[in-house]
Amino acid sequence: MSTTQSLFTLSPRVEKLRKVLEDFVEYECIPAEPLYHKQIGQGENRWKVVPPVIEQLKLRAKELGLWNLFLPNYYPESPGLTNLEYAVLCELMGRSTVAPEACNCGAPDTGNMEVFAKYGTAEQKAKWLVPLMDGRIRSAFAMTEPAVASSDATNIETSIVRDGDSYVVNGRKWWISGAGDPRCAVYLVMGKSDPHNKSPHKQQSVIIVPADAPGVRVIRPMQVYGYDDAPHGHVEMVFENVRVPASNMVLGEGRGFEIIQGRLGPGRLHHCMRAVGAAQRAVDLHVLRLTDTNRKTFGKILAQHGAAADALAQSRLEVEQGRLLVLKAADMVDRVGAKNAMTAIALAKVYVPSMTLRVVERAIQAYGAKGVSQDTPLAYMYATGRTLRIADGPDEVHLMQIAKAELRRADALRARDDKQRALAAAKL
Amino acid sequence: MSTTQSLFTLSPRVEKLRKVLEDFVEYECIPAEPLYHKQIGQGENRWKVVPPVIEQLKLRAKELGLWNLFLPNYYPESPGLTNLEYAVLCELMGRSTVAPEACNCGAPDTGNMEVFAKYGTAEQKAKWLVPLMDGRIRSAFAMTEPAVASSDATNIETSIVRDGDSYVVNGRKWWISGAGDPRCAVYLVMGKSDPHNKSPHKQQSVIIVPADAPGVRVIRPMQVYGYDDAPHGHVEMVFENVRVPASNMVLGEGRGFEIIQGRLGPGRLHHCMRAVGAAQRAVDLHVLRLTDTNRKTFGKILAQHGAAADALAQSRLEVEQGRLLVLKAADMVDRVGAKNAMTAIALAKVYVPSMTLRVVERAIQAYGAKGVSQDTPLAYMYATGRTLRIADGPDEVHLMQIAKAELRRADALRARDDKQRALAAAKL
Amino acid sequence: MSTTQSLFTLSPRVEKLRKVLEDFVEYECIPAEPLYHKQIGQGENRWKVVPPVIEQLKLRAKELGLWNLFLPNYYPESPGLTNLEYAVLCELMGRSTVAPEACNCGAPDTGNMEVFAKYGTAEQKAKWLVPLMDGRIRSAFAMTEPAVASSDATNIETSIVRDGDSYVVNGRKWWISGAGDPRCAVYLVMGKSDPHNKSPHKQQSVIIVPADAPGVRVIRPMQVYGYDDAPHGHVEMVFENVRVPASNMVLGEGRGFEIIQGRLGPGRLHHCMRAVGAAQRAVDLHVLRLTDTNRKTFGKILAQHGAAADALAQSRLEVEQGRLLVLKAADMVDRVGAKNAMTAIALAKVYVPSMTLRVVERAIQAYGAKGVSQDTPLAYMYATGRTLRIADGPDEVHLMQIAKAELRRADALRARDDKQRALAAAKL
Amino acid sequence: MSTTQSLFTLSPRVEKLRKVLEDFVEYECIPAEPLYHKQIGQGENRWKVVPPVIEQLKLRAKELGLWNLFLPNYYPESPGLTNLEYAVLCELMGRSTVAPEACNCGAPDTGNMEVFAKYGTAEQKAKWLVPLMDGRIRSAFAMTEPAVASSDATNIETSIVRDGDSYVVNGRKWWISGAGDPRCAVYLVMGKSDPHNKSPHKQQSVIIVPADAPGVRVIRPMQVYGYDDAPHGHVEMVFENVRVPASNMVLGEGRGFEIIQGRLGPGRLHHCMRAVGAAQRAVDLHVLRLTDTNRKTFGKILAQHGAAADALAQSRLEVEQGRLLVLKAADMVDRVGAKNAMTAIALAKVYVPSMTLRVVERAIQAYGAKGVSQDTPLAYMYATGRTLRIADGPDEVHLMQIAKAELRRADALRARDDKQRALAAAKL
Repeated sequence: MSTTQSLFTLSPRVEKLRKVLEDFVEYECIPAEPLYHKQIGQGENRWKVVPPVIEQLKLRAKELGLWNLFLPNYYPESPGLTNLEYAVLCELMGRSTVAPEACNCGAPDTGNMEVFAKYGTAEQKAKWLVPLMDGRIRSAFAMTEPAVASSDATNIETSIVRDGDSYVVNGRKWWISGAGDPRCAVYLVMGKSDPHNKSPHKQQSVIIVPADAPGVRVIRPMQVYGYDDAPHGHVEMVFENVRVPASNMVLGEGRGFEIIQGRLGPGRLHHCMRAVGAAQRAVDLHVLRLTDTNRKTFGKILAQHGAAADALAQSRLEVEQGRLLVLKAADMVDRVGAKNAMTAIALAKVYVPSMTLRVVERAIQAYGAKGVSQDTPLAYMYATGRTLRIADGPDEVHLMQIAKAELRRADALRARDDKQRALAAAKL
Repeated sequence: MSTTQSLFTLSPRVEKLRKVLEDFVEYECIPAEPLYHKQIGQGENRWKVVPPVIEQLKLRAKELGLWNLFLPNYYPESPGLTNLEYAVLCELMGRSTVAPEACNCGAPDTGNMEVFAKYGTAEQKAKWLVPLMDGRIRSAFAMTEPAVASSDATNIETSIVRDGDSYVVNGRKWWISGAGDPRCAVYLVMGKSDPHNKSPHKQQSVIIVPADAPGVRVIRPMQVYGYDDAPHGHVEMVFENVRVPASNMVLGEGRGFEIIQGRLGPGRLHHCMRAVGAAQRAVDLHVLRLTDTNRKTFGKILAQHGAAADALAQSRLEVEQGRLLVLKAADMVDRVGAKNAMTAIALAKVYVPSMTLRVVERAIQAYGAKGVSQDTPLAYMYATGRTLRIADGPDEVHLMQIAKAELRRADALRARDDKQRALAAAKL
Repeated sequence: MSTTQSLFTLSPRVEKLRKVLEDFVEYECIPAEPLYHKQIGQGENRWKVVPPVIEQLKLRAKELGLWNLFLPNYYPESPGLTNLEYAVLCELMGRSTVAPEACNCGAPDTGNMEVFAKYGTAEQKAKWLVPLMDGRIRSAFAMTEPAVASSDATNIETSIVRDGDSYVVNGRKWWISGAGDPRCAVYLVMGKSDPHNKSPHKQQSVIIVPADAPGVRVIRPMQVYGYDDAPHGHVEMVFENVRVPASNMVLGEGRGFEIIQGRLGPGRLHHCMRAVGAAQRAVDLHVLRLTDTNRKTFGKILAQHGAAADALAQSRLEVEQGRLLVLKAADMVDRVGAKNAMTAIALAKVYVPSMTLRVVERAIQAYGAKGVSQDTPLAYMYATGRTLRIADGPDEVHLMQIAKAELRRADALRARDDKQRALAAAKL
Repeated sequence: MSTTQSLFTLSPRVEKLRKVLEDFVEYECIPAEPLYHKQIGQGENRWKVVPPVIEQLKLRAKELGLWNLFLPNYYPESPGLTNLEYAVLCELMGRSTVAPEACNCGAPDTGNMEVFAKYGTAEQKAKWLVPLMDGRIRSAFAMTEPAVASSDATNIETSIVRDGDSYVVNGRKWWISGAGDPRCAVYLVMGKSDPHNKSPHKQQSVIIVPADAPGVRVIRPMQVYGYDDAPHGHVEMVFENVRVPASNMVLGEGRGFEIIQGRLGPGRLHHCMRAVGAAQRAVDLHVLRLTDTNRKTFGKILAQHGAAADALAQSRLEVEQGRLLVLKAADMVDRVGAKNAMTAIALAKVYVPSMTLRVVERAIQAYGAKGVSQDTPLAYMYATGRTLRIADGPDEVHLMQIAKAELRRADALRARDDKQRALAAAKL
């Protein structure tokens, strides 16, 4: 039933994983979604209850060998997949709202685990990476701030001040995803430890803050198009004189930018992989609607109205393009490293979220009023996809980065052009 | 501060109304929105409480002479404006989520009042039109059904069966807007009274059903993205053996299509007028964000990033286009009647909702995460605007209607083309 | 057969003109197009022969009272129409490639005549305006230069140097439309008379150069896609030590910007009016193709393929929007003057050329290979329309101007917003 | 300088070919383009002269081992590349208007050679395939007809009637690309040999017609946006009682559809490969313009205007997507055969031509008037790219095919959906 013939021949191990995962997603995760929503708490309990079904799914994913697949093969803790191999699998997880967490491959934990794996001390790993990889706790990354335009991260104002054997953290953050979850035990907090450093990219540090540290306070959940994503949530919170041991500093003072760059590249790609999966599910739902014999208008099923079929074809095309951009970027991360794959990642990051919105929108239009309601996953997909055009750098930032990479080719192109003109003139 | 220089010279009366209304919207309605949201009930009370502030605003609008302006000058009950004049004013109301109801110009009541004014008997008017125009009760129009593709209204299955001096109504409806409101006292229900009539457009009737009639039951609120629009709401409901007097029939058996055509034309246009107002408010918010000196990225305010300013210019252009289409359609309704203005209305109906979404989306992108949240009206505007691409006929139906009108010109165009060819050949 | 119900009630005089013009365009101009093309010279004669049929059409237009209608009623030489009235008529002329010249309403003469009418001395008028308005000669406006980015007109480098009772002009220009025509007798040349003036907008002058002045030399015709537009043409040319009497200066030294602003506003709008007409003709051709019973694919005429009809409806919508923007801008020029109508003109100038391209493109796609060929006017319409996105200021410049106008509203909007917030806070 | 890091590790042989070809294209073909245009004949000679430089380039390409690379490794005559390997190389050829012919990889010869290689008898191969592969003659494929909508090939009306040992061909064709070339020695003509066969896909045959057969007559060249593509050309022609030996039938009577399907799949892909190359050259030109220090507007080079850089980034993104779609389709042809790769080919065929147009358009806009002229290759690229949205099946046909492939998944998707619902219901 798959619409994608892989561009790559998967190894037998990954092909087998793919089949196990596909069944897990289709016949265990997706069917668990209504129950998950029913088990979410009401009122006060919205932020206190974790739907029990998710913990059952996690056990099942472990059992099936579908656990922590996100961590690439160059980390000792990795189950051994390349980024490219994971991309194929992560798309499948992205079809279901519960599958990523069920496989311990949900954001923002994956990015945080990669930070610990890449930069953490042995002590930091023991304390935070181990329980995270076991799925015993969850985590959040506290970067965005309400008072400044944080799409330019040099604007961040939270202070991290050394005081003896401790650091003291003060600041206000918002859109801290996952911080609403009662299982969230640890924050990675980005702030300024050296606000007067001449280099605006050396003023920042990332520090570990346990969720139960005094002075950590959640203010309110933020909504996304009316959704609050409980219990996960995207919260506004303050860090008020929060004191942590100096050993909680990650990698070293002033290395915050290095860390977020290392974290965001793969993180952006994971979001894109899942978004392609969501878009593909939207296409599947779109097909079902167009062929629904109960939905005849003017004597025809929707698929027989030419424009409706064209919209489906357009979605099919766009999903394929998103998928190929993601696969290429993942392949490049494997072959040349995340830093050298920056443009490839930016291309995927610019294209995939907008593509997902268009694809979901077309499916919504085919469903009519049902499409915007709670009766399909489409409206929620839209809301989630929409934030991806903003999160981890808005489209504008990535377009700018792509343009800069192109413009850097100007000198070489001009030299070639000059040579071509000289050669042409000589022939005339 | 207005961006529109009216294409028409407003009469002194309307110009004065415009100024009074502008102040009312800007300095009474918009500042009341946060309180309105705070006064909405929680849990069970969501559908029981009417925010008191709306009733205060209604008194104020009556006082200011801003009451029932929607009803055009060809009805005896009208305050005397043309559709074109109302279009200018209704755009202003559309800037605020509470202004239309405050002025007794909110959907679906306006459409229902027009039905009573146009087709109602003296008795029906006395019982329902009078309290509606007084703002004492509210109403709903029950058309869409979950089981069929109701964008083709001939699919509707609710039955309306004559039984002695009564009619008995049975059916399931959804997306019945306003039916959640505790003040909703009356339904206009569309159903089949003559399901075997050879003409599929004569099978339908519209009948009046009091909200407290036995057998009327609200099942659940529908969500639009994550919003439920309480207390107004968009509900799923059933009519189970609901018996009403035969005198509740509107206009006569089999005339349902005639009624919905008469109702939907102006109703669609009202939606578009308000949507232009919402879009204009989004542009205003967009300007504020681009010029916010606290939102510098890479050393510049957003307006100084060329692409950001272009997006604003594009929105400015598109709002203007929507406005002109609406004004032209309203003008045509005045001059040639709603029926002959069908294509003009369809052009507005196809363009304005999508335009609103694009304009709102651009503003959201400028606001970043704040834009999708509860901290601006933008995300909610998106959800509302999105349903307009579906409600009162989806885009597809209106495009089809526009195409048909164009294609009807083929014979005349072919005759002209033949003549031109003959003349050209004679010259060569 | 018209698709537009006028937004305005035309006066009886204009309504009569409209009918006469419609017949002239449809049954005299359009049928003359093939002959016109046949009469264009080949080889060397391409730039020497004027198709005789155009002079016959000019006589006919004069006879019918369709002459010089472009010149608005505030000039003594005007036939007495407002810009708005002309807009309705000019759209009709734009349907045919020969009608504008036939009615002495073709670019660039109209703009040049308006310059003479607005700024010319009695002597200049007698010498140039009179024969231009008689249709005895043609003219060109020499502004754009190959060596600089002339979309920023301050970059222009042609020099105009006072020398005794003369001025001496030196410079290279290109895209000088109309300069290929053997009847072109006069150039208005933009250049720098005071290149060191501190104000970059006072360095420029416009001077009259007779086409037969020594030192005026046409270098080559420029192509637009594969068209050369002979005999009219768009040429590259040099002015080499061209000496003209000091009395040829228009309006005064340093007033070049004032002149081009005065010339370009209405000029841009005329282009848009004609482009709407071309787009409407494309829609008409589109209808003919979709209903052509010889063009069945898969058993249906094209109109029966849903997506094909949607494309037509979309074009219908977009032409209407372009028309309304143009009418509004023309109306504003009449009511508040070209300078205060700048934003309205910019909105039309940004929208209409791109719209025309989309509308023409859709018609081309319906026609298939025939659409890109010489067998319909569509491909040529595309080429012409495409240059309008560049000529008289590229889209980018007009978008920037629209954005600036919007951003100037920021202070007033912020004051209102502050007041709204204060009022809202007081209520909570 | 290349912007593409290959998704695949090229074999050393192909990597070496790539480098040789890149140099050949950049420093021999592109510099020869102005001379090529100069050598095209004027007037009558337009269709008689072959620019000598092309024959020199052909010798050079042979010398460099860059000859006939298009023919895939499953033909005995092949130089041994896979379709995927050729895709990488063909993109480079597509950068230059003369490179494909120089490498004997130009349309329509490649498709015709593949027809002979795939379906030809030994005699047909000896007579036509050998000289074609030597580059001694050229060929054309005569399918499209002016009188019918040939995007549905069952409409084709040319008759092929058996008469003794001969077939007699009668019909009118147009858009026969390459038929203007004096070296064009052979036509493959599609027509109806069995017009009354019940299966509309068995009525057609393809037959070989020597260009010098009596009754073959070229009527006129067709233009594409003013270009006539001399000496190659796209001509209208008639076949009037053209008699050829029965052995000229290809594959057998009634197998025309089979042949065009076999021919068009790879042919479409070759067009797309070249179009990606053209688009990439447009991006390169775009970079040059944005960084041109002679083109400052308002004090900045174009690249510093935010929106201009965004347009470049968007083009960069879209070219990459086109490239990936082409590579995937080529890979699939290699792995599963052209027939099973139909959807992948259709995705590329729908996307790449439109993408090329958008990319070229953005570059044109950056170049201003120069962009639409003969001074850059952009306007011509537009015209060429535009025909690709029509040729070898218009976009509409390929979208329909993609939609059909998607809709065929409906049953499987519905079965899965039913199972998911049952599982979900069981959990609640």
